[in-house]
Amino acid sequence: MAKKYVYSFGGGKADGNEKMKNLLGGKGANLAEMAGHPKLKLPVPPGFTLTTEVCTAFYANKKKYPKELDAQVKTAIATVEKIMGKKFGDVKDPLLFSVRSGARKSMPGMMETVLNVGLTSATIPGMIKQTGGNDRFVYDAYRRLIMMYSDVVMEKAAGIEPEDDKGIRKQLEHIMSAMKKARGVKLDTDLSASDLKTLCEQFKKKVKEVLGKEFPDNHMEQMWGGISAVFSSWNGKRAISYRRIEKIPDEWGTAVNVQTMVFGNMGDDSATGVAFTRNPGTGENYFYGEYLINAQGEDVVAGIRTPAPVNEKSKSSQNADHLSLEKGMPKLYKELFAIQKRLENHYRDMQDIEFTIEKGVLFMLQCRIGKRNGPAAVKMATDMYNEKFITAEEAVMRVTPAQLDELLHPIVDPKAEKAMKPLAKGLPAGPGGAAGQIVFSSNDAVAAFDKGKKVILVREETNPEDIEGMRAAQAILTARGGMTSHAALVARGWGKCCIVGCGDVHIDLAKKTVVIGGKTLKEWDWITLNGSKGNVYDGKLPMVDASEEGSILGDFLKICDKSRKMGIRTNADTPSDAAKARFFGAEGIGLFRIEHMFYGEGSDQSLFLLRKMIMSKSVEERKTALAELFPFMKSDIKATLNAMDGLPVTIRLIDPPLHEFVPHEKAKLQALATSLKIDMANLEKRADSLRESNPMMGHRGVRLGVTYPEITEMQARAIIEAAAELIKEGKKANPEIMIPVVCTVEEINDQIVIIKKVHDEVNKKFGKKVPLLIGTMIEIPRAALVAGKIAVSADFFSFGTNDLTQMSFGFSRDDIGGFLPEYVDKKILPCDPFQSIDEEGVGELISIGIERGRKTKKNLKIGICGEHGGDPDSIAFCYKKGMNYVSCSPFRVPIARLASARAAVEAKNK
Amino acid sequence: MAKKYVYSFGGGKADGNEKMKNLLGGKGANLAEMAGHPKLKLPVPPGFTLTTEVCTAFYANKKKYPKELDAQVKTAIATVEKIMGKKFGDVKDPLLFSVRSGARKSMPGMMETVLNVGLTSATIPGMIKQTGGNDRFVYDAYRRLIMMYSDVVMEKAAGIEPEDDKGIRKQLEHIMSAMKKARGVKLDTDLSASDLKTLCEQFKKKVKEVLGKEFPDNHMEQMWGGISAVFSSWNGKRAISYRRIEKIPDEWGTAVNVQTMVFGNMGDDSATGVAFTRNPGTGENYFYGEYLINAQGEDVVAGIRTPAPVNEKSKSSQNADHLSLEKGMPKLYKELFAIQKRLENHYRDMQDIEFTIEKGVLFMLQCRIGKRNGPAAVKMATDMYNEKFITAEEAVMRVTPAQLDELLHPIVDPKAEKAMKPLAKGLPAGPGGAAGQIVFSSNDAVAAFDKGKKVILVREETNPEDIEGMRAAQAILTARGGMTSHAALVARGWGKCCIVGCGDVHIDLAKKTVVIGGKTLKEWDWITLNGSKGNVYDGKLPMVDASEEGSILGDFLKICDKSRKMGIRTNADTPSDAAKARFFGAEGIGLFRIEHMFYGEGSDQSLFLLRKMIMSKSVEERKTALAELFPFMKSDIKATLNAMDGLPVTIRLIDPPLHEFVPHEKAKLQALATSLKIDMANLEKRADSLRESNPMMGHRGVRLGVTYPEITEMQARAIIEAAAELIKEGKKANPEIMIPVVCTVEEINDQIVIIKKVHDEVNKKFGKKVPLLIGTMIEIPRAALVAGKIAVSADFFSFGTNDLTQMSFGFSRDDIGGFLPEYVDKKILPCDPFQSIDEEGVGELISIGIERGRKTKKNLKIGICGEHGGDPDSIAFCYKKGMNYVSCSPFRVPIARLASARAAVEAKNK
Repeated sequence: MAKKYVYSFGGGKADGNEKMKNLLGGKGANLAEMAGHPKLKLPVPPGFTLTTEVCTAFYANKKKYPKELDAQVKTAIATVEKIMGKKFGDVKDPLLFSVRSGARKSMPGMMETVLNVGLTSATIPGMIKQTGGNDRFVYDAYRRLIMMYSDVVMEKAAGIEPEDDKGIRKQLEHIMSAMKKARGVKLDTDLSASDLKTLCEQFKKKVKEVLGKEFPDNHMEQMWGGISAVFSSWNGKRAISYRRIEKIPDEWGTAVNVQTMVFGNMGDDSATGVAFTRNPGTGENYFYGEYLINAQGEDVVAGIRTPAPVNEKSKSSQNADHLSLEKGMPKLYKELFAIQKRLENHYRDMQDIEFTIEKGVLFMLQCRIGKRNGPAAVKMATDMYNEKFITAEEAVMRVTPAQLDELLHPIVDPKAEKAMKPLAKGLPAGPGGAAGQIVFSSNDAVAAFDKGKKVILVREETNPEDIEGMRAAQAILTARGGMTSHAALVARGWGKCCIVGCGDVHIDLAKKTVVIGGKTLKEWDWITLNGSKGNVYDGKLPMVDASEEGSILGDFLKICDKSRKMGIRTNADTPSDAAKARFFGAEGIGLFRIEHMFYGEGSDQSLFLLRKMIMSKSVEERKTALAELFPFMKSDIKATLNAMDGLPVTIRLIDPPLHEFVPHEKAKLQALATSLKIDMANLEKRADSLRESNPMMGHRGVRLGVTYPEITEMQARAIIEAAAELIKEGKKANPEIMIPVVCTVEEINDQIVIIKKVHDEVNKKFGKKVPLLIGTMIEIPRAALVAGKIAVSADFFSFGTNDLTQMSFGFSRDDIGGFLPEYVDKKILPCDPFQSIDEEGVGELISIGIERGRKTKKNLKIGICGEHGGDPDSIAFCYKKGMNYVSCSPFRVPIARLASARAAVEAKNK
Repeated sequence: MAKKYVYSFGGGKADGNEKMKNLLGGKGANLAEMAGHPKLKLPVPPGFTLTTEVCTAFYANKKKYPKELDAQVKTAIATVEKIMGKKFGDVKDPLLFSVRSGARKSMPGMMETVLNVGLTSATIPGMIKQTGGNDRFVYDAYRRLIMMYSDVVMEKAAGIEPEDDKGIRKQLEHIMSAMKKARGVKLDTDLSASDLKTLCEQFKKKVKEVLGKEFPDNHMEQMWGGISAVFSSWNGKRAISYRRIEKIPDEWGTAVNVQTMVFGNMGDDSATGVAFTRNPGTGENYFYGEYLINAQGEDVVAGIRTPAPVNEKSKSSQNADHLSLEKGMPKLYKELFAIQKRLENHYRDMQDIEFTIEKGVLFMLQCRIGKRNGPAAVKMATDMYNEKFITAEEAVMRVTPAQLDELLHPIVDPKAEKAMKPLAKGLPAGPGGAAGQIVFSSNDAVAAFDKGKKVILVREETNPEDIEGMRAAQAILTARGGMTSHAALVARGWGKCCIVGCGDVHIDLAKKTVVIGGKTLKEWDWITLNGSKGNVYDGKLPMVDASEEGSILGDFLKICDKSRKMGIRTNADTPSDAAKARFFGAEGIGLFRIEHMFYGEGSDQSLFLLRKMIMSKSVEERKTALAELFPFMKSDIKATLNAMDGLPVTIRLIDPPLHEFVPHEKAKLQALATSLKIDMANLEKRADSLRESNPMMGHRGVRLGVTYPEITEMQARAIIEAAAELIKEGKKANPEIMIPVVCTVEEINDQIVIIKKVHDEVNKKFGKKVPLLIGTMIEIPRAALVAGKIAVSADFFSFGTNDLTQMSFGFSRDDIGGFLPEYVDKKILPCDPFQSIDEEGVGELISIGIERGRKTKKNLKIGICGEHGGDPDSIAFCYKKGMNYVSCSPFRVPIARLASARAAVEAKNK
C-alpha cells in the first residue's frame, strides 16, 4: 500500500488525532482532534493536512514531492468537496481554501500562509453570486490573495531577494495607498467594489512587470504554489535562525494544512476572535478573549480596530464600551462557551482557541495549549491541582523554571520596554529589572543610597572592594566579565539585577561619563536595565513587581515538593542570606564561603585582620594575626549556624589566592604596614611575592591549608567552637567542614589530622560532642578521577562546577569574553558552559567522580555548590546522576525546588 | 615443622642462595651463594643469617622475637663452632662474631654493625693465648667492641637520644684522646697494650656512669644485644628518611648477618681490601681495587692510611709508590684474581668484592653487583654485549637513563665539588655543570659572550625577550619558576645547565649585586652551577667532559634500538636543533612551535611583524601584517622541513596568549605604534585589552584560530607552500599540522575547513600533491574525555602533558613554587608532576583519551610532546599505554631511545 501523506479532517471525522503531532504538526493534529474525536466533533471547517514527512521527502529529494502525493491531495479535495457540497474551481459555487504551515512546535510568524486559494477569473463570478452579489467582499478577498500569493509564493518561495522596500508586497501596498489617496479615503474598507476590482487588475499587471510572470489564474496551480511556498518557508532564513535559537531540529520539517475558507467578514452576522479558557495574564479561572465583528483574522492582528471582549468578565478599561459577544450574540456565545469548556476538560489544560462566525455559524479554526506568563502559569497549575483537575506531577510540569523566575524579581514594565530600543546588550547576569542614576564608584553608590537615591553602579569590572556599593545600587552594569565574573556571582547571589560583559560600555572615569552604545551619558543620568535579557535602556522605565503572589508561590512550591526527591540547599554567607534562603525553602547551606565574611557591612576590622594575617611573613606573625581574627570569625559563623537552626551548614575553608585580599588603596596598605611594624617598601614586597601568573591555578584552597596549617587550625577552631557554644546554649548546630581545591586524598588526610585534633580539643573544652562532617569539593579534574581514593577519607563530596568547568575546558572565567561569544555564535559550543553544565565533558567528570566515590562509600553524600546549582538543566542533570542535593543562591531556591521536582517527574515518566 | 628463621653458611655449604635476597637480604644471599654454590664454594668465614621475616615479626609483635628463634640461633652457632673447631664463649679458644645488617637493597651507612662480639673478661685471656700473646691486638679489639656496643646497642637501640656531642661514643672518644695526649702520641696504633687495657676499664666505668648499666660481660648477651640493635636500627630516623627518599617499603625489613670474625690486622701477613671485577669509573675490563696491609675494614673507610693498589694496572698517581698485592703476595693475589673472575662469570656482571687476609689466608667477606658511573655503565654494557657475555636486552637494562645522561653534558669535577658546600639549592632544571661570571641582563650576557667571556645569567625569572642572553650564557640561574618555567623549558631544550626557583637568590638590580644563600656577590663574580643537582657554588670549579665517549654512546644506542618499539621524535624549532636531534637519532619532529621562530638570532624583523599583527585592531590591519609576516614564516618552516629531509614534522599552530608577545621596552612599543599609525596611548590601550587574569586558560591556541581565522589561514599557507616548494625542488617534505588547546571537535572542524581550502589552493598552484596530516594536541582534560569524537576529525593525537598536568591538577606551572616543594616534602605528591607523569590522574586522562580515540579510529597515530617525553618513567608509561612515539628535546633523544628500549624489555620480561 502506498504511504499515507495526506490526512483529512472535517464532517465529524478525521484521519488523525492529537497524538500525531510529529506527523501532522501541532495545528494539524489539533484540527483532527477537534473535528474527529468522538467526545468533541466540533464544527471545524473541513480540510486536510500534508504530513511533515512530505516536507522531509521534499528536501531529501531535490524539492520534488513523493509521486503518491498528487493523487492523495486530489482524493482529499474530493472528500472536502463532498462534505461541503461545493467544488474547488467550480464556476458556480466554488470552494476556497487556506494553506497554512504547522510544525511540531509552534514557530509564530516564521512561516507562510496563503488565504482565499481558488479565486480565479473563472470562479469569481460564481463566488459573487453565492455571496448574494457581494462583489466588494469577493474583490477584497481576491486582492488579498494576489498580495499574499505574489509575495509568499512567487517571490519568497522562488528565492528572489529584493532589497528592503523593493519587495512585491511593498510595491502593491504603494499602489493601494495611491488608490486610497486618489479616492480620498483612509481605510481599506472605504474602497468600493469597483475600486478593488481596478486594484486587482493593477496588482496583476505589477506582478507581471516585477516578477516577469503572470499571476496564476488556475485554482490547482494556486494550491500547489501555496503548498510549495509553505514547505519552502521551512528553510527560509528567519525560520532557520529561529530554530537555532529554540533548538528545533532541522529534520523535523513542517506540515501543511489546507482548509476550507470561512469568512468572519461577511457582514455584521460574521465575526472572528481569539480566546483562552482561562486568563493567560493572571491565570484566573474564567473564559477570556476578544473578537471583531465583520473581520478576518488578519484584521485582529493588524490592530486597526480595537477588539471587543468575548464576555463581560473580559472587559477592560480599553474595551469597556464595546459590545461583548456574550451580550451581542448570546446564542453563539453560549455555544462557544460550551466548546471552550469541553476543550479545556478534554485537553486538561488552558486552551488558546481561534474561532470564526460566518453568517451566524460558528467555526473552530484552531486550538492549542495556551501560552501564559509566569504568574499565570503558577496560578493555573496551583488552581488546577486544587480543583483536582490535574495531579501534583502534572502541576509541576506546567510551570517552567523561567516562568517561576518571573515571580521572583521586579521587572521592567513589558509595555514600556516594548516601545524602547536598547542602547546596548550585555550578558544577563542578574535577573529582573531596575532603573537608577549612573554612578561610577562604590563610595558614590553608598553615599547616594544613604540619601535615598536609586543608583546603578557602572564599572569596568567589580572586585570585592566594591561590595558595599553593589549592595547599595539598584543594579550593576560592567563592561567586562562573564556570567561567573565577580559582579555576576554577587548579583545572582543577591537576586539583584545585573548586566556584565557589555562591550559597548566605555567609561571615562576622569570625565565621569560613559558612552553606552554610542550615546554619551553623565553621572546621575538615568538608565534602566533588564537583567534577564541583558538590555540597557536610556532613561527611567517603569517597573512592575511580579512577585505579589506570595502565597500562590508558596502553595505551588509545596506541590513541587511532593514530587521532589533531591535536597535543596543554599549558598549563603550571612545570617540574613541564610534566613532568606530558609524562607524560600532551603534545607541547609551547601556553601558558606568563609572568606565572604570579610566583605559587607561592619567587616572592616575583620578584613583588616585577615589582610594582616596574609601579609605575615613568619609563622609567629601569622599566628598572632590569626588569634586576633579568631573571635570575629567565630561569631560570624555562629550567627549563621544559629540562623539555620540545626540544618546542616557546609563551611568551605578559605579558598581564593591570598593576593586577592591585598588592598589596592594606599591608606589601607599603610595601616597594614603600621600594624605589622614594617615599612611600605617591605609591605609592597610581601604583596608582590603573593602575585601569581594564573591565580586561578595558584596557591589557593587546600594548598594554603597544607602550607599554612595554622590557618586551617584557626578556621576549624572557629567553626567547631561556634557550634559548641550554640549547643551549650541549648541550640542546635550542624557544621560540615569542606576542603576546597583538592586534587589528591593526601591533601585531605593532611587537613583532617589538624581538624580532628581541634575537634577533640573543643569537645573536651566544652564537654559536648559537636557533630561534624569533613568533606571535600570536587572541583579539580584530577579529584574526580581519583574520587575512589578521596572517598576513603571524605564524609561528603560537593561538586564545585565553576572551577571544574574552568579546568576541564581550560577556560578562565574572567577571560572568556575574548572568544566565548564567538564560540556560541559559531555553534562550537551549544551554550556558555558556566551557565549550564557541559554534560559531555564536565558532566563526564561528574559521572566518573560520583561512580568512583560511591564505589568506595556506597552512601556517600554528594551535592553541587557551583553556580550551576541554580540552573534548571543542570539541576536535572544532577538528579539523573544521583546527587543528594543541589545548592544555589537564596533567590534560586524556588527555581531549584521546581527544577528538581520536574527532573523527578520526567525521570518517572520516561 | 617450625618456620626457618636462621640460614647457615660456610664450610662449603649454605642453606640459602643468591636468589633469596628478599628473605636473606642482599649481603646474606650473596654470602650464601659464595659459600654454597657448587661452582663457587669460596672461602667465606662461616656464619648465619637471621631472615627479614624475623625483622617484620619483631615489629609486628611489640619487638619480641618468634619463640623458635632462640633455638635456631643456638643450632646455627653450633654449626659454625663445628666448622671452625672453636667455641663461642670458650675460655681457651673463643670464637668471635660480627653482627651486621643486610637489607634487600643496600642502605649504605644507614644501619648498625657490631664487631668482635664474644670478647668478655672470661674469653680475653684465651684469645690472647690464641694470638700468640698479642694482648695489644686483643685489647684493641675489646675497646672497639665497647665503643661500638655502648653506642649502637646500649644507647641507640635503647632509644636514648642525647644532645649532639653528648653521646656515649663521643665521651669515650674524649677519654681516648685524653689518653693519647697523656702518652704524647698521635695515632691509636701508638697506644700500648697496657694503655688499651686501662682504656677498656675507663670505658666500662664511663658506660656505667652515663648509661646506668654495666657493659655486658656475657658473650650471648652481647650477641642478642647486637642482633636487636641491628633490627632496631631499621626504624632509626636516618634509615626511615633514607627509605623515603629511595622509595624502599618499610615492610621489607632487614636481615641480620652473624659471621665469624676474621682479622686483617693480625700483622703484616694480614690485609683487607675492596676490589671490582672491572674499573667502575671508566668501565674498562680489568681487575681493579685497593687494599691495606695489617688493617681492618673500618681503617680503610677512615682514610688515615692511603690504600695500595691490588695490582699494577690499578696504580694511580696517588698510590704509584705502594706495593701492589700482585707483587707483594703473588700467590694470594692469584687466588683472589681467579675468584673475582669466577664471580663475574657466575653473576654475569661487574662485582664489587670485599676480602680479608688473616695470617696468609684469604677470606671473602662480601660480593655484590658493583656500582658504576654513567660512562662506565655504558662501556661495560656495550663491551659485555660485544663479548657475547650478555644479550642486547640485558645490556639495555644495565644502563639507567640517569647514567646515560651523565655522558651528555659537561659536569662539575666531582672531586672539586665534594670539597665545597653549596651556597644555595634550587630546582635542577637543566643538566650538567657550568662555571661563569654573574650578569643580570640578557644584553650584558650577549655583550660578554661576544668578548669571549663565560657568564651565568642570573634573573628573577626569564621571559622570551631573554632568549639571546640565555643562549649566550653558560648557564641560567633564576630565583623563581618551576621545572617547566620558561627558563627551565628553554635550557632543557638546549641541554644547557640551569637552576630555577632558587628561593635563596635575591637580586638587587640597581646595585648589580645578588645575595645567594646569605653571601653577597657582585656582577662579574664567578659562580658554579651543578644543574643536575640544583647546587649553586661560590667561585669557579673545574669541569669535566663526560661525553668524550662519542662512539661508545652511538654503539650502545644501536644496541638499545634492537629492543625499542616506540618511535622517538624531537621538539625542535630551528634547522640547527633539527640537525642536532637527527644526529642523536630522532625519527621526526613531534613538536615544532611556530611561535618560537620569533625569538633567537635574526628574528627581529619577523617578531616585529608578529607584534604588529597582534596589535592590529581590524581584520584589515591584521591581514596586512600577516601578509608581511608570511614570507618569513614560510622560509623558516622550509628550512626545518628541509633539515628533516622527509621525516615527519609536526608543526603546532600559534599557541600562547597573544599578550605574551607584547614587548616591554618603550622603544619597541613606539616602533609598533608608528608602524600601525596610531599613538602610544592607543597602542597601550590595545595591549591592555589583551591582558588576561589567567592567561594559561585564556584566549590562546585554537581559540585564536577560531576568532581570527586569517591567522590560521596564513600559517597553513606558510606550512603547505614551504613543503610544496621543497617538493618542487625535488626534495622531500612531510608536514603535519597540529592544532593546540582543543577542547571540542567542533574547533578542529572549524580549522580543518580553513586548512583544507589552503591545501587545495596550494596543490593547485604548485601542481603537486603536498602530503599533509591534520591532528590535534590533547592537552585539555575535556579533550581527553571527548577523544572519541575528536578522533573522527583528527589524523593524529599528540598529548601535551604540560598543559594537561596544569589543568588536571589546577596547577599553574608558573605559580607552583609557593606550595609544590612542601607537597613533595610532605609526601602529598610523590614527585613534581611536571617532571614525571602523574599516572593516577593525568595518566588516567591519557588512558581515557587513547582508548576512546582508538575506539573511533583503530590505528590512530598517538604521541606525546610535553616535557614528559624526555622523562624515563613517563616514557615507560607512554609505551605501556600504546603510544606510537614520544617527542622530546634534542638532548633527551638518547635518553628516550634508552628508556623506550628498557620499557619494551621490561614489558617483555613481565
